[in-house]
Amino acid sequence: MSLVIVGSVAFDAIETPFGKTDKIVGGAGTYAGLAASYLFDQVKVIGVVGEDFGANIDIFKSRGIQTEGIEIIPGGKSFFWAGKYHNDMNSRDTLATELNVLGDFDPKIPASYQDCEYLLLGNLTPQIQIDTLNRLDNKPKLVVLDTMNFWMDVALEDLKTVLKRIDVLTINDAEARQLSGEYSLVKAAEVILAMGPKYLIIKKGEHGALLFGEGQIFAAPALPLADVFDPTGAGDAFAGGFIGYLAKIKTINFNNMKNAIIYGSALASFCVEKFGTERLQELHKDEIADRIKQFVHLSQFQLD
Amino acid sequence: MSLVIVGSVAFDAIETPFGKTDKIVGGAGTYAGLAASYLFDQVKVIGVVGEDFGANIDIFKSRGIQTEGIEIIPGGKSFFWAGKYHNDMNSRDTLATELNVLGDFDPKIPASYQDCEYLLLGNLTPQIQIDTLNRLDNKPKLVVLDTMNFWMDVALEDLKTVLKRIDVLTINDAEARQLSGEYSLVKAAEVILAMGPKYLIIKKGEHGALLFGEGQIFAAPALPLADVFDPTGAGDAFAGGFIGYLAKIKTINFNNMKNAIIYGSALASFCVEKFGTERLQELHKDEIADRIKQFVHLSQFQLD
Repeated sequence: MSLVIVGSVAFDAIETPFGKTDKIVGGAGTYAGLAASYLFDQVKVIGVVGEDFGANIDIFKSRGIQTEGIEIIPGGKSFFWAGKYHNDMNSRDTLATELNVLGDFDPKIPASYQDCEYLLLGNLTPQIQIDTLNRLDNKPKLVVLDTMNFWMDVALEDLKTVLKRIDVLTINDAEARQLSGEYSLVKAAEVILAMGPKYLIIKKGEHGALLFGEGQIFAAPALPLADVFDPTGAGDAFAGGFIGYLAKIKTINFNNMKNAIIYGSALASFCVEKFGTERLQELHKDEIADRIKQFVHLSQFQLD
Repeated sequence: MSLVIVGSVAFDAIETPFGKTDKIVGGAGTYAGLAASYLFDQVKVIGVVGEDFGANIDIFKSRGIQTEGIEIIPGGKSFFWAGKYHNDMNSRDTLATELNVLGDFDPKIPASYQDCEYLLLGNLTPQIQIDTLNRLDNKPKLVVLDTMNFWMDVALEDLKTVLKRIDVLTINDAEARQLSGEYSLVKAAEVILAMGPKYLIIKKGEHGALLFGEGQIFAAPALPLADVFDPTGAGDAFAGGFIGYLAKIKTINFNNMKNAIIYGSALASFCVEKFGTERLQELHKDEIADRIKQFVHLSQFQLD
């Protein structure tokens, strides 16, 4: 029984008000895989890199993440993204996007991944997400899908097709409004849940996240931080922590989904404390337990 | 022992995507007073109106709110504000502001108000807030102050003076950033708490509220609503519910402050369901208890 994560594995160059990096390892599959690895021990990643990725693959191996599904294209170059965050850290300029080998990504599922029970379909073309589902021998117990406004603009029909086959959709508030045509997030959730997903998670960055499903709503805060060094990958770390917790707990219900969101939020809060994946490579179990306690103090109250 | 609220008592004309009103009763003192009256029975309002306010004073009396401190200026006209909300309900245009009798407001404290233990200084000039404190025979047990960016622009020194004499400051996130010069709300809170208040509440509208103090942070969600009919007065209803709860509970500590924020948020959530003060005039205890339960379901989780 495993958790399979399909997502980009890439190089990023990041500039924030706190500094800038050279080419460092990034990608949604990387952030989500690292985050999930702290909660569940059978994490398997599907992605594609170029030959230039080289020994960077050890980032996964050192966390016990299986990489048989990360295809290495001989002579190819890995996906590269460069971006610069503004002072408010909520907006950024993309300075470079070089798709490279990701442009022809055709996800292959190794036989050893066919025990997939939990599947995270990272933000890629909806067609890749559909192909992945088609190539699995068995329907996973839980499918979480991440997407973005770009696919709503250029591949809406494919996106609607894949939404019928998933359990949890994660998008941000602007994307929920775009996908539904409704400004109220309550109404937006109603429209989106009618498209297929059983649960909808609306990510609101520094304002936390909302979970809709089973006729209920849960609001989780983000941890207020003195410094956000680098927001890159926070949403992916959130998704990885979320599905990693559910893979560990194994029972899918609204209460466990609430807890999964708290774990996802905790992993995201670590992610932004340093540049790139640095913080997600060095976490200790105690730190995670302490961070979860912070979330309890932050949001729990006791009425008389 | 009483809760005294100093604030505007006024007429508003409001336009939202859901409709528009004629001149209806509004004002921070009105919204806060009504909200507090559901939690505490000794609510006393200080304000000023013109002769045109007439029988509208019954809005207070029907909720058991004492009005001896609402001065009626013979021949005067009440403060009038007209505004139009945009589709997102988060921004609005002011169409008219007629200060009228509020322009010369000099708060007078009736002898019957000198038992004040809980004081809410609504958003007025910092000088009026200082005068009110000076005219009370005894220092109240708890002083909550609301203010806005305008006073930071035109009366910053007076504002800093009054901040040294209060316990709780309520402002929104943009105002916290302006007052502190810090973008991070954690750092902003540190700077602002060093200015005098023991507690800082940062109101974030649809994203809820943050409480800082005693080295702790609490994040409360706002209730996600399908329709926000009219946001006018929500922040004042929040403040009234907040201090009303504390006046009832009587013990000031961080845990009770958390609960007070939940009660304030609940009252604010009712406020926006209808135009103006309509919803705050007709609440039943059961509705409030049910709404509090909704906040519990919305934000509380149970880890294994």
